[in-house]
Amino acid sequence: MSSGVPTLIALLHGPDQPGLVARVAGWIFERGGNILHADQHRDMEAGVFFQRVEWVPCFAPASGALPEAPSGGRTVIEAASEFTTFAATLGMSARVLSSAQRARVALFVSKADHCFHDLVLRGKAGDFPGEIVAVVGNHRDLAEAAAGYGLPFHHVPVSAETKVAAEARQLDLLRELRVELVVLARYMQVLSADFIGRFGAPVINIHHSFLPAFAGGRPYHQAHSRGVKLIGATAHYATRDLDEGPIIHQDVVRVTHRHGVDDLVRKGRDLERQVLAQALRWHLEGRVLAYGNKTVVFD
Amino acid sequence: MSSGVPTLIALLHGPDQPGLVARVAGWIFERGGNILHADQHRDMEAGVFFQRVEWVPCFAPASGALPEAPSGGRTVIEAASEFTTFAATLGMSARVLSSAQRARVALFVSKADHCFHDLVLRGKAGDFPGEIVAVVGNHRDLAEAAAGYGLPFHHVPVSAETKVAAEARQLDLLRELRVELVVLARYMQVLSADFIGRFGAPVINIHHSFLPAFAGGRPYHQAHSRGVKLIGATAHYATRDLDEGPIIHQDVVRVTHRHGVDDLVRKGRDLERQVLAQALRWHLEGRVLAYGNKTVVFD
Amino acid sequence: MSSGVPTLIALLHGPDQPGLVARVAGWIFERGGNILHADQHRDMEAGVFFQRVEWVPCFAPASGALPEAPSGGRTVIEAASEFTTFAATLGMSARVLSSAQRARVALFVSKADHCFHDLVLRGKAGDFPGEIVAVVGNHRDLAEAAAGYGLPFHHVPVSAETKVAAEARQLDLLRELRVELVVLARYMQVLSADFIGRFGAPVINIHHSFLPAFAGGRPYHQAHSRGVKLIGATAHYATRDLDEGPIIHQDVVRVTHRHGVDDLVRKGRDLERQVLAQALRWHLEGRVLAYGNKTVVFD
Amino acid sequence: MSSGVPTLIALLHGPDQPGLVARVAGWIFERGGNILHADQHRDMEAGVFFQRVEWVPCFAPASGALPEAPSGGRTVIEAASEFTTFAATLGMSARVLSSAQRARVALFVSKADHCFHDLVLRGKAGDFPGEIVAVVGNHRDLAEAAAGYGLPFHHVPVSAETKVAAEARQLDLLRELRVELVVLARYMQVLSADFIGRFGAPVINIHHSFLPAFAGGRPYHQAHSRGVKLIGATAHYATRDLDEGPIIHQDVVRVTHRHGVDDLVRKGRDLERQVLAQALRWHLEGRVLAYGNKTVVFD
Repeated sequence: MSSGVPTLIALLHGPDQPGLVARVAGWIFERGGNILHADQHRDMEAGVFFQRVEWVPCFAPASGALPEAPSGGRTVIEAASEFTTFAATLGMSARVLSSAQRARVALFVSKADHCFHDLVLRGKAGDFPGEIVAVVGNHRDLAEAAAGYGLPFHHVPVSAETKVAAEARQLDLLRELRVELVVLARYMQVLSADFIGRFGAPVINIHHSFLPAFAGGRPYHQAHSRGVKLIGATAHYATRDLDEGPIIHQDVVRVTHRHGVDDLVRKGRDLERQVLAQALRWHLEGRVLAYGNKTVVFD
Repeated sequence: MSSGVPTLIALLHGPDQPGLVARVAGWIFERGGNILHADQHRDMEAGVFFQRVEWVPCFAPASGALPEAPSGGRTVIEAASEFTTFAATLGMSARVLSSAQRARVALFVSKADHCFHDLVLRGKAGDFPGEIVAVVGNHRDLAEAAAGYGLPFHHVPVSAETKVAAEARQLDLLRELRVELVVLARYMQVLSADFIGRFGAPVINIHHSFLPAFAGGRPYHQAHSRGVKLIGATAHYATRDLDEGPIIHQDVVRVTHRHGVDDLVRKGRDLERQVLAQALRWHLEGRVLAYGNKTVVFD
Repeated sequence: MSSGVPTLIALLHGPDQPGLVARVAGWIFERGGNILHADQHRDMEAGVFFQRVEWVPCFAPASGALPEAPSGGRTVIEAASEFTTFAATLGMSARVLSSAQRARVALFVSKADHCFHDLVLRGKAGDFPGEIVAVVGNHRDLAEAAAGYGLPFHHVPVSAETKVAAEARQLDLLRELRVELVVLARYMQVLSADFIGRFGAPVINIHHSFLPAFAGGRPYHQAHSRGVKLIGATAHYATRDLDEGPIIHQDVVRVTHRHGVDDLVRKGRDLERQVLAQALRWHLEGRVLAYGNKTVVFD
Repeated sequence: MSSGVPTLIALLHGPDQPGLVARVAGWIFERGGNILHADQHRDMEAGVFFQRVEWVPCFAPASGALPEAPSGGRTVIEAASEFTTFAATLGMSARVLSSAQRARVALFVSKADHCFHDLVLRGKAGDFPGEIVAVVGNHRDLAEAAAGYGLPFHHVPVSAETKVAAEARQLDLLRELRVELVVLARYMQVLSADFIGRFGAPVINIHHSFLPAFAGGRPYHQAHSRGVKLIGATAHYATRDLDEGPIIHQDVVRVTHRHGVDDLVRKGRDLERQVLAQALRWHLEGRVLAYGNKTVVFD
């Protein structure tokens, strides 16, 4: 899944019609590319076709010259652009990424550090094709830990009064750093619909509950009070409606009457780390296609 | 956990106080009993003590006569009664059962047969210490299958108009058959609060969803529409508030975008069978203590 | 995944080469077919390409006549044959099935009945596209239960002395009944390499242990003695080397020090049922491609 | 499970006899103690009784003086000693710990850092009642990371020639630091039977495979080659027979044909972290009783 030649990965979706698989495969083949993986899905009710296709492109040398690096800047962008144009002729939207590129990721944090440490250490271990370029905190609690990892920490305090200005500052920062993905690593502020709209790139959140969830805050207290035997965590894209964005991944862990709220919180921390890390990895590998309020995950 | 000498199992709960474990153990020891298992729990917030204790009682022979069968009718009832009286002196409620007794169980069914077959076959295999003495259906669909297993089937149709009379007939039947537990094996009628109150013995239901659940009916359609990645099932005691009774067991199964509503229904069937069977088994082994809206499961 | 128009499903594998996806898709498209699902895999080390492709074929009416039923006998066989011929031109082996056909399955049983009941009931519920046409037992224990389900039961006793003759009789039976799949539902006899070779169609076995397993018999006793915290079950194709065939599915269940050998056996029964049923379903839906000693499962 | 008053926790085992539960509970009650949790187990085959009992001791003030801190040095040691003496009169071995004490733990590491980071971060988060007092590495790779966490790192290189001397140096270090538990956090050297014997305190190892396992090294390569659908990890006490010590915890994760050896290694890392951390936590909370080659885990 990893080693070797850079590949292109396209995520496509659009109205279903006969021959889509053949035409996509044919287009790639005619240009000398070799498909490594191709996975399709049809939403029968909605009549929508989805595809993830990954291929080794051929960048033919012009007039005997050496080929440019297939993952190199302009060449990949060109290849992506060509494919997107082709997809449009089929009535399909496409997003193309190169396996050689590492997305620029910002972590938004508050005080809790479990997801923060987990994601940073996984990043260092090469667990996902992304680079954490900034940590943005509304509190200073994780500034030192970020520094310890050699990561720039940006303190942007947020209060009801300063929220508009704070989000503007966050957006400036994200633009300046060319951030392509924001991960809310237990960031305890709600991003406004305006922020989501203006950022224009994906935001992944970890919800510390199974969805559908208990209404209101403090899910572990509510779970304990209701006497549930499982607690859950849900990673989803943040949309303008909080906690209503498309679900990427969910998991649960078993609890018993012996577990107090403290234990639920501790077990929840473990679960949140796992679920968020998996969702991030799938996203960065180009395996997640969101449409409407759902996702297709080509795992 | 199984073989050999009949045991007594007591489930106790009441206000916590020092020395409860010692006094219960002492009482049993003084009467020549030997504790096989004893499991305690304290709800620190509520200040409630819970215990499951299982012991081999000693039924001393009177004047050299042969001992009565320790699990025999009167003797067990006497032992249970003595223990209950003793527990009351500690301010505790107690329920005592004998491992040699098999509870009389009625299955309530409608048209779906997956939980029905599963429970009957497990009963025949000796998976739980209970005897299914009747199948009560508001439809006739499972009459033949019940007959095939040699089980009496009682058809009690229910409509909005006949509900009161139908429940009266069901209650007569349960009394006549000395039923000690009703299992709603995908029974698609809501039992009235009046029925629950007058029956006076436990009713276990399988809810075809994780709880907390999507509000309203057709959970698999809702789960599919929301794009969840896990679906759940919950076994709980039925109380006057539908779906709000104490949860005994829950489990989930993973689903993906590839699974249509049909697949969710099929996977849900498997899950419901497993969850209901486990809850029934725990209940019949005297492992479940309901209090307030929660359960303690001594597994 | 289910409803509606019959589809053709092809399972292909062979040496990898550029353009395979495009050529398969193109071939189907040119004949008016519409691909519903296509899933590929490459074994990079072995250089082998695997594909499962499912499509709605177009059976053009000859001279204005009504089209033949697309799943009807000869037409499907022709379509399958055409595809297989085409695949051969790519150096690929292909197996083609129609979603409208139900494979003829024989269950081999001994005395244990848990997998037997489970598979029969799932078959009746339409959980998998196959028909159980015979139950073959080396003991008579399940004869009555089979009759209760309306299934023909064939008693073929096996001893060391009669094994050769017994297997010959089994093979005759399988041929006569045109059986396409044998499921060893806790059949406690080892099939000879000769039987496997002469039957020539798949045999699925459920191994009551995780693989790699404790060497020797009585896995639950060994698991208990070693103090493992998980027990497993493995469904695999039977090959000439017992327990060494390609694994289709595995699962585990948690156990603790409280569980005696009896409990392990009971939990194992549940696990075996689940794992075998899932493996059978995947096989019959044309999702399993065995090669060498491994499987590719397009789930 | 956590807050508040220090408790004493005793782990007992010995030959079963009637009245053990009553006598232990009575002894504690007579001394003014209050049992919070008591969990028993009987190994019926071996005739061995096991108990974990946790209680709030009463340290009566002598002649009106203020009571000593119940968890204070001498008092706890005295209480433990009294209980151990009492247990001996019942023919039982006992180990007593105080919830207020934090065990002194040494991590042994080589080059892999995933378990190392995980345990250190959990320790800082207060996930288990222990203190990591040293990191011992046969390579220098984790020296800097240890320093970053403020942990002393001891480099003790080991080769075939220096093994005896190296182990002597490790033992000196452990004694000097009063280490009560060694955790082999992916330490790639085999400790000699002599080391295990002379250290005299528990050593927990994480085995990167399910047990029973593939014989030999490189389990993920073997798992991939065999085409298994689950990979496992096992935490166990190290004994003189490598990989044969009592199992504390095991878990598995699902893999498919899509996962290469690299993926198995990555998934295995996650699993190893989880399984080792859980085993460590259970051990430090006094929940694990090893006997023969098995464990009783009072979770």
